[in-house]
Amino acid sequence: MKELRIALIGHRFMGRAHSNAWNQVSRFFDPAVKPVLQVACGRDSAELAAFARRWGWQETETDWRRLLERDDIDAIDIATPTFLHAEMAIAAAEAGKHIFCEKPFANTLAEGEAMLAAAEKAGVVHYLNHNYRRCPAVLLAKKIIDDGEIGEIYHWRGAYQQSWLVDPRHPLDWKLKKSTAAAGPLWDLGSHAVDLARFLVGEFAEIDCRAKQFIPERPLAEDPSRRGPVEVECAAILSGEFQNGALASIETTRYATGRRNRHTFEIYGSQGALTWDMEDMNRLRFYSEGDSEDRRGFRDILVTEPSHDYVGAWWPPGHIIGYEHAFVHAVLDFLNACGTGGSVEPDFRDGVEGLRVLEAAATSMESGRRVAV
Amino acid sequence: MKELRIALIGHRFMGRAHSNAWNQVSRFFDPAVKPVLQVACGRDSAELAAFARRWGWQETETDWRRLLERDDIDAIDIATPTFLHAEMAIAAAEAGKHIFCEKPFANTLAEGEAMLAAAEKAGVVHYLNHNYRRCPAVLLAKKIIDDGEIGEIYHWRGAYQQSWLVDPRHPLDWKLKKSTAAAGPLWDLGSHAVDLARFLVGEFAEIDCRAKQFIPERPLAEDPSRRGPVEVECAAILSGEFQNGALASIETTRYATGRRNRHTFEIYGSQGALTWDMEDMNRLRFYSEGDSEDRRGFRDILVTEPSHDYVGAWWPPGHIIGYEHAFVHAVLDFLNACGTGGSVEPDFRDGVEGLRVLEAAATSMESGRRVAV
Amino acid sequence: MKELRIALIGHRFMGRAHSNAWNQVSRFFDPAVKPVLQVACGRDSAELAAFARRWGWQETETDWRRLLERDDIDAIDIATPTFLHAEMAIAAAEAGKHIFCEKPFANTLAEGEAMLAAAEKAGVVHYLNHNYRRCPAVLLAKKIIDDGEIGEIYHWRGAYQQSWLVDPRHPLDWKLKKSTAAAGPLWDLGSHAVDLARFLVGEFAEIDCRAKQFIPERPLAEDPSRRGPVEVECAAILSGEFQNGALASIETTRYATGRRNRHTFEIYGSQGALTWDMEDMNRLRFYSEGDSEDRRGFRDILVTEPSHDYVGAWWPPGHIIGYEHAFVHAVLDFLNACGTGGSVEPDFRDGVEGLRVLEAAATSMESGRRVAV
Amino acid sequence: MKELRIALIGHRFMGRAHSNAWNQVSRFFDPAVKPVLQVACGRDSAELAAFARRWGWQETETDWRRLLERDDIDAIDIATPTFLHAEMAIAAAEAGKHIFCEKPFANTLAEGEAMLAAAEKAGVVHYLNHNYRRCPAVLLAKKIIDDGEIGEIYHWRGAYQQSWLVDPRHPLDWKLKKSTAAAGPLWDLGSHAVDLARFLVGEFAEIDCRAKQFIPERPLAEDPSRRGPVEVECAAILSGEFQNGALASIETTRYATGRRNRHTFEIYGSQGALTWDMEDMNRLRFYSEGDSEDRRGFRDILVTEPSHDYVGAWWPPGHIIGYEHAFVHAVLDFLNACGTGGSVEPDFRDGVEGLRVLEAAATSMESGRRVAV
Repeated sequence: MKELRIALIGHRFMGRAHSNAWNQVSRFFDPAVKPVLQVACGRDSAELAAFARRWGWQETETDWRRLLERDDIDAIDIATPTFLHAEMAIAAAEAGKHIFCEKPFANTLAEGEAMLAAAEKAGVVHYLNHNYRRCPAVLLAKKIIDDGEIGEIYHWRGAYQQSWLVDPRHPLDWKLKKSTAAAGPLWDLGSHAVDLARFLVGEFAEIDCRAKQFIPERPLAEDPSRRGPVEVECAAILSGEFQNGALASIETTRYATGRRNRHTFEIYGSQGALTWDMEDMNRLRFYSEGDSEDRRGFRDILVTEPSHDYVGAWWPPGHIIGYEHAFVHAVLDFLNACGTGGSVEPDFRDGVEGLRVLEAAATSMESGRRVAV
Repeated sequence: MKELRIALIGHRFMGRAHSNAWNQVSRFFDPAVKPVLQVACGRDSAELAAFARRWGWQETETDWRRLLERDDIDAIDIATPTFLHAEMAIAAAEAGKHIFCEKPFANTLAEGEAMLAAAEKAGVVHYLNHNYRRCPAVLLAKKIIDDGEIGEIYHWRGAYQQSWLVDPRHPLDWKLKKSTAAAGPLWDLGSHAVDLARFLVGEFAEIDCRAKQFIPERPLAEDPSRRGPVEVECAAILSGEFQNGALASIETTRYATGRRNRHTFEIYGSQGALTWDMEDMNRLRFYSEGDSEDRRGFRDILVTEPSHDYVGAWWPPGHIIGYEHAFVHAVLDFLNACGTGGSVEPDFRDGVEGLRVLEAAATSMESGRRVAV
Repeated sequence: MKELRIALIGHRFMGRAHSNAWNQVSRFFDPAVKPVLQVACGRDSAELAAFARRWGWQETETDWRRLLERDDIDAIDIATPTFLHAEMAIAAAEAGKHIFCEKPFANTLAEGEAMLAAAEKAGVVHYLNHNYRRCPAVLLAKKIIDDGEIGEIYHWRGAYQQSWLVDPRHPLDWKLKKSTAAAGPLWDLGSHAVDLARFLVGEFAEIDCRAKQFIPERPLAEDPSRRGPVEVECAAILSGEFQNGALASIETTRYATGRRNRHTFEIYGSQGALTWDMEDMNRLRFYSEGDSEDRRGFRDILVTEPSHDYVGAWWPPGHIIGYEHAFVHAVLDFLNACGTGGSVEPDFRDGVEGLRVLEAAATSMESGRRVAV
Repeated sequence: MKELRIALIGHRFMGRAHSNAWNQVSRFFDPAVKPVLQVACGRDSAELAAFARRWGWQETETDWRRLLERDDIDAIDIATPTFLHAEMAIAAAEAGKHIFCEKPFANTLAEGEAMLAAAEKAGVVHYLNHNYRRCPAVLLAKKIIDDGEIGEIYHWRGAYQQSWLVDPRHPLDWKLKKSTAAAGPLWDLGSHAVDLARFLVGEFAEIDCRAKQFIPERPLAEDPSRRGPVEVECAAILSGEFQNGALASIETTRYATGRRNRHTFEIYGSQGALTWDMEDMNRLRFYSEGDSEDRRGFRDILVTEPSHDYVGAWWPPGHIIGYEHAFVHAVLDFLNACGTGGSVEPDFRDGVEGLRVLEAAATSMESGRRVAV
């Protein structure tokens, strides 16, 4: 079987999640090409060595640009903070490497457009890792919508709620600075929420956004006795309209006490409804007007059957999967795209469309007006 | 419109619930005969007077036997402790009065058989108040079963769980003495559970029962500084088989901390399943193999639609009803039976059949063996 | 005991709900004054007579102005469509009658201010029937917030979702015309949602609103073969900020397939969180940072204990109440206010504050801009 | 770091789950010894080769006895059908190999006792894979019980429900034959349920069991046109008493339509209660009388915090884990026991105690009487 030799840049949370996926995919699935964990790249060589050993990367590298000069690397996996994506992705494309890119796509729409242009020009496979699309329950939602079973869509009511900033002692890390993170939950969580909304409902036509800072100063990471300004919003509430006329609302926050990673949506259509929540990711709720009049109710579907996407490859029905499994599904489809000359969604074009929405939201956040997407 | 003149015996918890039902039924429904709250009967004349005033009973009476001599009373509503039912019901039947009788039916099967014989001989309407049968969600369960939508039934897994005896200071009241209550939760809660099982699945063929005393002594009601023996079981677990071959399990307890009135069942059949819980009484969960293979899940049906039994007479869809409403439904059907010369279920025959199961369980509780019903 | 003689105007859905409450309150509670159901008033005399008979109103009247001239009427219960409230309430106040007024308060803020001025000038008791405030679970939420147990509030995420307009055959009734209803769900459902938010979080500082028409034309009620324009929005999404800095989002719609009367909120604060849903109105979910670190979770509180407001007067713990019970609680407090010379919340001042928010939302709906409240 | 060289026998469902765990453990944890996937053993050499390649086993072997002769194997992982366990485990112990054994432990108590004796005599580490013990939510339940937070335990109400036999076309496989499986769900599912009950509540004192065959004949696996008798029960209901006086009920079935792998318990004690369900394995429900009187309710604890056992090693809070993760936790503790000369629970002694309960249940199933354990 052909192989795909991968270089991973980044070895923190996402570096782990990606490494796990590259390792697991060939155990549970049969990708068209077999991934080879060639090089792990990062700046801290000691940490990196331990990371590589643990996850099975054959080599390490501290200068990511060197990766692009090597012929024995086919794909670059970008698992770094957002502000580094554009430079890395463009260089990777120019070097003819396939790209597996973590989200949020980029800090600005302009960056994103350049990334897309570079990838398309180079003809490489480009994938943007909105992993939630590949939860089996989300894919079932997509199928139900595409089958017309909820009819014309009227409402998307979404939220992505976390709570890690409720503690005022949490330091001023890179996610709270504009230069490194572009924005607060709007970018970090909103990019996921917008992507799911686009995936399931369609493109946005107009957006408005209201944001808030609850705790404006925090201890410096490097010296907790001093404090610095939080540069990004603490929470952002969006409302908008899709091109097909459906209404949208999306709430993103890091201040929802009691919620750890609640990425949730409610979709209401003329024939039915769907709801989902990442904290309970193996289940989809589905209401159908097609059920007989006195027997209608939200079905609580445990999405672990062989007839559901991906999940049959893991365990028997009723044996649930967890957070990291959607990464494995993503890696599988990326490998198949690389192996067959195809493409994989969401890609950099989705990244650009998502950023279009986020930038419109950011504009609205400032101006207080509705902004066309 | 014709009237039905009622005498109520008992003015505590059940006296209130029945009085409310007699008052409410003509507001929300159109019974064939209109109930007249003629006489309230009890032994404490001061309390009774206040009770009658509050609930609209026209007269009071302290000797229940006098009620039977009067021509201006058409029906007797027995809301007294169980051990008084037989004497009252038999006398009422012999006096030609229709009978609305609270549960548990009687302390012994022999008593129950005498009650049934008397009622049948007299040709009066006789009703046994297993109110849970008339929760709209339970009636929907019945309809789904009768429509064959869950197929052949394999399992009834039921429980009736309360927790009011967890507190060791709860006194030794009449419900904890054998002479007045016959048994503990087996009679009090088990009678309901067995009735629901019979209603939805069918007659029992065999039963076994295991019981336990957790707190064997309690303060006397009349003098809390002294203690006396709890004469009945604290919890009773039944398992058994129905005549149609389905398995049954029923757990009854007053020691389920955190459960206040959780009367619940799970029913599994060859084509589907149903679950219900009285603490969430407006909902029925229904699983159907008839749904398409990848879209099956327990439907959470909010049973408040006009197409559901009774509930459309109350409020618009989505506006839930409460505990007392099932009493109103029972009263409605009792009035209709009295007005039209029909009958109403469950009746004393159901009482007898239920006692047959309970007595078999009591026998098994002692002997440790399976007992045929 | 003193009596309060009541005249009810309106005999449809709300006329029934109010009549039931006037009847039930003295059964389960001991109000300071006893309500007398003196006169029921409406325009259709035949329907009205049947209504009065059913609900126990002693007399009927077809001209509401005559009620105000009578000395034997102490309070006016206004259960008519919104556009009639101002004229009736002002006249009632001028006649010195206490006022129990259905919601939405009025069609315009100006009307509402006149109503408040008239009531205050007359010194009568004035009550606006946002019944949801008196669900025991909502009152428990209020108590938890007032006790500081969820700390500083960051988020109100609310929704009031119904689905009765999803059917395109639903006719163009008074709720779909601007002159009679002022607006669509913004007024009808939004008034409730805004009132709950004000009750639990505080006053609004700023609002914006986005609305949508999904089905712009409907069959005429008087001639279904013809169609006319729906004059009000089908759904309205609000976001805003409270004076205390908390963020708000409120979604109101009649197009949420599968939701019948889902009035729900999530509240997130620095120390805890609360959620509630009217379709499951006996339960409150409460998350507390005060629980030990590894044992935190949303508590599912069944609000049926004697320690909870009102509910102990009904049935034992675990026996749930329904939609109409909150009306009984409202009537109780109104009677107590009338009997003791006190006041009752929410009153016309709340009505005015609520309309201030709704009118700001309506302005934003048109202009697309944020509007100060 | 020291290594532990493993030989796995069996390459179907459990072979996969074990192989995954041996691979994953060193990625997410730091076991005292590093597992080496030395040999995979099975009878079908073609299948076995593919399996070994996929899962990273260095060699294959078709005769399991040869494994025991090799010095380069430290531990035997037995993932074969139950009836093979005793012979393999005893031989492995005699050869001085540590043993990781899949459940059910053995077909008979006598076998189990021999296995235990052999393992103890050899002084090897012996582990019985009741993986559910190492779900973080189950471990939290254990901790809450051990902390005394639910007080004295009154009730264990458990069930293990699957539905794969509802389809009458399911063939007569090894799980339906007495010689290979010992029993039906009583052994397969009941062994898990009994182990959890023992782990959380304590040892059983007495048991009774009722079983049923719903579909007594099935198509032969080797020739579906012919049918043969199902030799084991289709469902088994247990009730019993623990040595500490708590009551137990356990329902095991393969005929619970709509349930795929619902392993669930309710525990009620004098101070609180706990419930859990494997289909929702990341959550524990906990009710505490210690909460203030009006704020008690079952807490829905999402067990994904760093303070919870094992789970912090995977992903950030709110990112759930799946079925296979508990196997990784088991492997971790087995490796640590092997590396440090310690032991790991549950071990063969637990296997013996569990079989004592199951054999008593099997006796009761036949005799219809209560059986002391």
